[in-house]
Amino acid sequence: MSTTGAVWSANAVTPTPRELAERFQAVRRFTHLICEPLAVEDFVIQSMPDVSPAKWHLAHTSWFFERFILAPHASGYREHHPQYNYLFNSYYNTVGPQHCRVQRGILARPTVSEVYDYRFAVDEAMTRLIERADRTVFAAIAPLVELGLHHEQQHQELLVTDIKHIFSSNPLLPAYHKGRDEPKGATPPPMSWIGFDEGVRGIGRNADEGFCFDNETPRHRVFINAFEIASRPATNRDYLAFMEDGGYRAPQHWLSAGWATIQEQGWTQPIYWYRDPDRGDRWMQFTLAGPRPLALDEPVCHLSYFEADAYARWAGARLPTEAEWETAAADQPLRGNLAESQRFHPAPAPGADPANPLEQAYGDVWEWTSSQYSPYPGYKPLPGALGEYNGKFMCNQFVLRGGSCATPVPHMRLTYRNFFAPDARWQFTGLRLARDL
Amino acid sequence: MSTTGAVWSANAVTPTPRELAERFQAVRRFTHLICEPLAVEDFVIQSMPDVSPAKWHLAHTSWFFERFILAPHASGYREHHPQYNYLFNSYYNTVGPQHCRVQRGILARPTVSEVYDYRFAVDEAMTRLIERADRTVFAAIAPLVELGLHHEQQHQELLVTDIKHIFSSNPLLPAYHKGRDEPKGATPPPMSWIGFDEGVRGIGRNADEGFCFDNETPRHRVFINAFEIASRPATNRDYLAFMEDGGYRAPQHWLSAGWATIQEQGWTQPIYWYRDPDRGDRWMQFTLAGPRPLALDEPVCHLSYFEADAYARWAGARLPTEAEWETAAADQPLRGNLAESQRFHPAPAPGADPANPLEQAYGDVWEWTSSQYSPYPGYKPLPGALGEYNGKFMCNQFVLRGGSCATPVPHMRLTYRNFFAPDARWQFTGLRLARDL
Amino acid sequence: MSTTGAVWSANAVTPTPRELAERFQAVRRFTHLICEPLAVEDFVIQSMPDVSPAKWHLAHTSWFFERFILAPHASGYREHHPQYNYLFNSYYNTVGPQHCRVQRGILARPTVSEVYDYRFAVDEAMTRLIERADRTVFAAIAPLVELGLHHEQQHQELLVTDIKHIFSSNPLLPAYHKGRDEPKGATPPPMSWIGFDEGVRGIGRNADEGFCFDNETPRHRVFINAFEIASRPATNRDYLAFMEDGGYRAPQHWLSAGWATIQEQGWTQPIYWYRDPDRGDRWMQFTLAGPRPLALDEPVCHLSYFEADAYARWAGARLPTEAEWETAAADQPLRGNLAESQRFHPAPAPGADPANPLEQAYGDVWEWTSSQYSPYPGYKPLPGALGEYNGKFMCNQFVLRGGSCATPVPHMRLTYRNFFAPDARWQFTGLRLARDL
Amino acid sequence: MSTTGAVWSANAVTPTPRELAERFQAVRRFTHLICEPLAVEDFVIQSMPDVSPAKWHLAHTSWFFERFILAPHASGYREHHPQYNYLFNSYYNTVGPQHCRVQRGILARPTVSEVYDYRFAVDEAMTRLIERADRTVFAAIAPLVELGLHHEQQHQELLVTDIKHIFSSNPLLPAYHKGRDEPKGATPPPMSWIGFDEGVRGIGRNADEGFCFDNETPRHRVFINAFEIASRPATNRDYLAFMEDGGYRAPQHWLSAGWATIQEQGWTQPIYWYRDPDRGDRWMQFTLAGPRPLALDEPVCHLSYFEADAYARWAGARLPTEAEWETAAADQPLRGNLAESQRFHPAPAPGADPANPLEQAYGDVWEWTSSQYSPYPGYKPLPGALGEYNGKFMCNQFVLRGGSCATPVPHMRLTYRNFFAPDARWQFTGLRLARDL
Repeated sequence: MSTTGAVWSANAVTPTPRELAERFQAVRRFTHLICEPLAVEDFVIQSMPDVSPAKWHLAHTSWFFERFILAPHASGYREHHPQYNYLFNSYYNTVGPQHCRVQRGILARPTVSEVYDYRFAVDEAMTRLIERADRTVFAAIAPLVELGLHHEQQHQELLVTDIKHIFSSNPLLPAYHKGRDEPKGATPPPMSWIGFDEGVRGIGRNADEGFCFDNETPRHRVFINAFEIASRPATNRDYLAFMEDGGYRAPQHWLSAGWATIQEQGWTQPIYWYRDPDRGDRWMQFTLAGPRPLALDEPVCHLSYFEADAYARWAGARLPTEAEWETAAADQPLRGNLAESQRFHPAPAPGADPANPLEQAYGDVWEWTSSQYSPYPGYKPLPGALGEYNGKFMCNQFVLRGGSCATPVPHMRLTYRNFFAPDARWQFTGLRLARDL
Repeated sequence: MSTTGAVWSANAVTPTPRELAERFQAVRRFTHLICEPLAVEDFVIQSMPDVSPAKWHLAHTSWFFERFILAPHASGYREHHPQYNYLFNSYYNTVGPQHCRVQRGILARPTVSEVYDYRFAVDEAMTRLIERADRTVFAAIAPLVELGLHHEQQHQELLVTDIKHIFSSNPLLPAYHKGRDEPKGATPPPMSWIGFDEGVRGIGRNADEGFCFDNETPRHRVFINAFEIASRPATNRDYLAFMEDGGYRAPQHWLSAGWATIQEQGWTQPIYWYRDPDRGDRWMQFTLAGPRPLALDEPVCHLSYFEADAYARWAGARLPTEAEWETAAADQPLRGNLAESQRFHPAPAPGADPANPLEQAYGDVWEWTSSQYSPYPGYKPLPGALGEYNGKFMCNQFVLRGGSCATPVPHMRLTYRNFFAPDARWQFTGLRLARDL
Repeated sequence: MSTTGAVWSANAVTPTPRELAERFQAVRRFTHLICEPLAVEDFVIQSMPDVSPAKWHLAHTSWFFERFILAPHASGYREHHPQYNYLFNSYYNTVGPQHCRVQRGILARPTVSEVYDYRFAVDEAMTRLIERADRTVFAAIAPLVELGLHHEQQHQELLVTDIKHIFSSNPLLPAYHKGRDEPKGATPPPMSWIGFDEGVRGIGRNADEGFCFDNETPRHRVFINAFEIASRPATNRDYLAFMEDGGYRAPQHWLSAGWATIQEQGWTQPIYWYRDPDRGDRWMQFTLAGPRPLALDEPVCHLSYFEADAYARWAGARLPTEAEWETAAADQPLRGNLAESQRFHPAPAPGADPANPLEQAYGDVWEWTSSQYSPYPGYKPLPGALGEYNGKFMCNQFVLRGGSCATPVPHMRLTYRNFFAPDARWQFTGLRLARDL
Repeated sequence: MSTTGAVWSANAVTPTPRELAERFQAVRRFTHLICEPLAVEDFVIQSMPDVSPAKWHLAHTSWFFERFILAPHASGYREHHPQYNYLFNSYYNTVGPQHCRVQRGILARPTVSEVYDYRFAVDEAMTRLIERADRTVFAAIAPLVELGLHHEQQHQELLVTDIKHIFSSNPLLPAYHKGRDEPKGATPPPMSWIGFDEGVRGIGRNADEGFCFDNETPRHRVFINAFEIASRPATNRDYLAFMEDGGYRAPQHWLSAGWATIQEQGWTQPIYWYRDPDRGDRWMQFTLAGPRPLALDEPVCHLSYFEADAYARWAGARLPTEAEWETAAADQPLRGNLAESQRFHPAPAPGADPANPLEQAYGDVWEWTSSQYSPYPGYKPLPGALGEYNGKFMCNQFVLRGGSCATPVPHMRLTYRNFFAPDARWQFTGLRLARDL
């Protein structure tokens, strides 16, 4: 495992043990904050195969620290429970067999309280290890702790999206946090196009430029044709126009697999939209604050790749490639509607900042790109079990960029490559148009 | 609804309002007693489509009283929650649409505590209604209360068997009630055969002989050939001999559908049996007290019809028809290892009582009969929605007789017809051999 | 195998070898007659799992003679092809493994011509064996030949119904035999009821009364309550009234499994009915002579048990038990619209014969009874592999009586028990009402 | 439709009508040649959903000419049959609804003979149209005829691979062309590596460079890192080493979706390999000449992408990108073991040609690349229905390059992009290794 250090070790600023321990505790606490509004029963549910119960997220992220840091590096450490390695291993085949993913929702035990005990025991052992590590051990574990915290932050976002799906699947339509009103604002200015010249560009990140996942490495050159990209993501208003133009009934807009999917699944609108017969068939959307009328100026959200791609074709444009997206966003400041606000809902574009015309590059909604998820030239997965983290999913997935309203700020980067199957739509996923010049 | 009274009204002894209210409370309390050992998380799980979450049982049985008694008979009654009629209706199509059965396990809400509130509100309203009813109302509701309590008792048994399945599906193999040791006893005497002559027999029950379900009516004549029946149910020892003789690998013992089932499901032993590699491959069984070594003298339990039938054929015998079973058990006293002991596990035959040679006729294990579940000649389902209680299931099910260790005594009768699909095996189901004379 | 003789050997009149050989050839020839209108391509298709390709029927029936008669009894016989025992064994597990049933339609080879070669080779060997057998061998094989011929006749009916399904599944709606017009006749007289007294009746057949399948034995006594039965099967006119009264939308008429089936399958009429928008939405039916307008006076046909049962309940009646049917038909002459006419389509009731008021007891449509398919008291399956012929299917099937327009006359008997799963509807299946007195 | 001409019209040499008519007839005849060894029954079978019956291929390719050329351009043309547009449209949604793909194998009619009638009628009408067209019409149809012929050639390859799958699915393992022996030759020289420098390269083809599919356009620049590529495809000997090293049991070699696939499907070797217990468990392969012992020097064939990718990872290398493949093959002559030999089986590498060190670039086996199938920058699908030909499949597919032993020579090009789902393995698909420099 020690060689894994090489991938992240040269952070511009190496933290001290105390700094790292504090960061560890802060990230772990935010997970608890997300779970605070939940009833015990809410922690147990798996509403579809892609969703995991909240208590599974709590345990799995703890297992990650236990398995990859405490077990190999904390001398004398005894695993918390002999079967947790089986129950809470997600997909690391080289570490051992796993409990069947689609059956995570039939496990009443360990109870929520036992899972929190597990978390606290891991927290305590981790804090002790970080604070008391000698120089050699610290050098070995610091990059793993960094990885474990980014892993935890990924699951923070999944907790939010999984909870939203679980609540939406209940006919009672309960609210996770009631009373969070949507911000009122002026109607955003119309979308405009921002142009970029052709040329060879540098894309991705090298391991010595600070933490990143292995799939973002190495930085490499690509040739890009001239293109334009939209100043903001498509809105609910934009998408409604597509729907009202018969978008879901016109095969010519759709990929073949997308057309098959909407036929089989009976999709006629984004996942959390519905018409309310008691309000004159008004369009409603389910949010973590409960159901409310569709806000037309918000970025359209919870689209599958198929829907984003069909919309773009209908609009006479296309989705950007990930290299185009990264080129366009290269100079944008990393700020926006991200997880820290705890609104967990996309907001209308705030209005253009002349210095940064690419609005909402970060936060609000993940933006589908037209790039299928593939290794960068020269890509090497991490050695050992952690090599299963990213590389083995490079098949039948599309890349998304820019983070969402459920992504923690310190987890985000220009080069971040998120990826989902083209029919996934329970994440906060939207789109931004592009076109050739 | 009033005419339904006619079916049960002529109980030998009509209870007073107070007696009925006390019986109501006692039966409802026993449901809570069953749930006492559960953690909140345990109430939420649906481990397979046939299983319902414990909190669903708690709510559905309350809904039954609310929907069929309080709503039509308690003047001014307001339903507890506008959506519970949708969520907790099991299969009464004439009452309205229902939440999808296989998705009972994705509902976190209402919480366990809210479900108990529902129960207590129904209990209070029911008690008030029973105690304050005038003569006419009491005459109308008394038989419905009786039906509702038997319905509750059916769900008490399902609670026990569903909890057992839920706990067994968890790799942690938790115990519902630890430390319940199996009773030690002398080895029971060998099985013997009890003979009966051919002739016309009366089977079933008339509505004026005290409470029964509509499927037990009317009493009618059948012609039965001479037959013999075993003095006790087959034991684990008996069944192991079948397994060790290659029973699960020999198609000639099996119904065609049974052979297909064991191939597809990979069945090679009863559902809760497994070998423990840490104990020299000893046969173990999962029980509500946790895993323990297989006790050879106990009645074999948790068999599907397919397995019971194959065993009987291998043993050179057959299963009895339900008419034979009822003929053989006609004079047996209603006593045995039933739910009141709260052991919830079958026990070895206690040893023959010369006056009652048919051992364990009641309790321990439901006994599969060779009779497919069909209407008795002259059968009339209850009018209205309650007619959906039994009759509409008379297809692709087999009849079981005699009750089990999870059946409450006051719920049991000589003429009781339980029924399950031939591949069901999560109930306490075993068998007793029969043969032609 | 010799003991199997005991079951059929005591035919009232034992045939001579020549008689048996002639009967053998005649029955085999009729199979070829049925296949005459087929194109080579038609022989290959399996339009759904229950259907077998015509060439499979041709080969399987030949295999039956080869495997059960030629192999054990024709000295020096060499099997026609080493893999046909695998390819054309239907379900005799004790004889060996079988080609997967649902994949019968992916076998181009053996070709139709090779299959006919197989048939002719078996025919020749069988004829030689029958004609040259000494007394001992003849005594051993004669009952097996008899069984093989009845087996062939069963497959003659399946050939007709499978071909009908195959042709109906093709959007071109080809005709098997064009130009067979439906007979015109006077409107049949209204249905009337025929009553029978309660009492103990003899049902079934003993092995020494002439050929029958093992499932019809032994003759035994049953007690029957007084009942009435309809003078003729229900007609298309009758069934249309049920449909027009919303029969397929009213759950109270249906068994629970039936209601689930019609929801899942989207059934809203019998399988071969459809409305023709080019003829003012007139009701049409697909027949072996191609599509034609629905004839209202014909017996309703191609109903599943679920539909027959729902219709009966809607009509305020019920289906007869098989014992009632056999009681009612006991004195009827064995004649009617059976396979010999080669019309292969049910005809309107011809009008009452005062001596035989139970019209169309034989032929036209198989009549669903309310009896689930179970062993008769004292039933013993044939020994050896032939014991798999019937007994292992006694589960989740319902009994039908009386034969259809595709059943050969010499194959039919009063006691004949046909059986199908309750959702099967590609056979010529209808119903006759009954009710309690 | 006229604008489509722009895509192909500028062929270096425009054919005369007579030349085009002759080419049309020659290509159509080769289809018949492929079908010559088939029995009528062989034309009907669909052995899995991806496979189409041979007669469907014959009809669909004719429909393509009828629908896209005869109907719009042959004045007074009457369609051959009113329902063929429904039956033989493959996936052109904008042209109308289609018969369900997975049910192509339940259609006995039209018969093979009727399908040939259809072909001949289309051939005649096409020949007449081509020969008699005036200048304007010829300019409009010539590029469409070219497209139709390439379409026919694609189906020629599918005919071969579908027939192979159909024959292999039959337990009789029939041969399509018996007695085609594999060529004996010297053992090929060991694989070597060929290096290429980094730089911007031109990839793809412009419409004015001669016929190509729209997905190969436009020619565009890509930046490629320095790389090496193997001198020949991996062989059966190479792949056996992977298998014998436990390749199918070691999750670290596999994509996550690949590992799931081999578990679910139980794959432990390439699709047509099996061990023959009668030959000491020797490895055999099913070929179009029947089963024969595995030839170790042949290119490994019938691999899914998952298997090709896992093998490459195990071998310490990777698959090339399609840009790398096109760069490496740019100067290779277009020759090799292609369809014209009618061997339809890959052959061992013939031995290096110093002038063309990249052996077997064309023919033998399609080579999986690591590139997911995506649009080239600036890609525009054809207008109208023909735009559905390629673009709508750009999702969850991987690109293959170089053609196979079943690809006609005139159909092949350097820039040709074939594509299949990563679990497809019934095509002649193999791999060539690459690695970073």
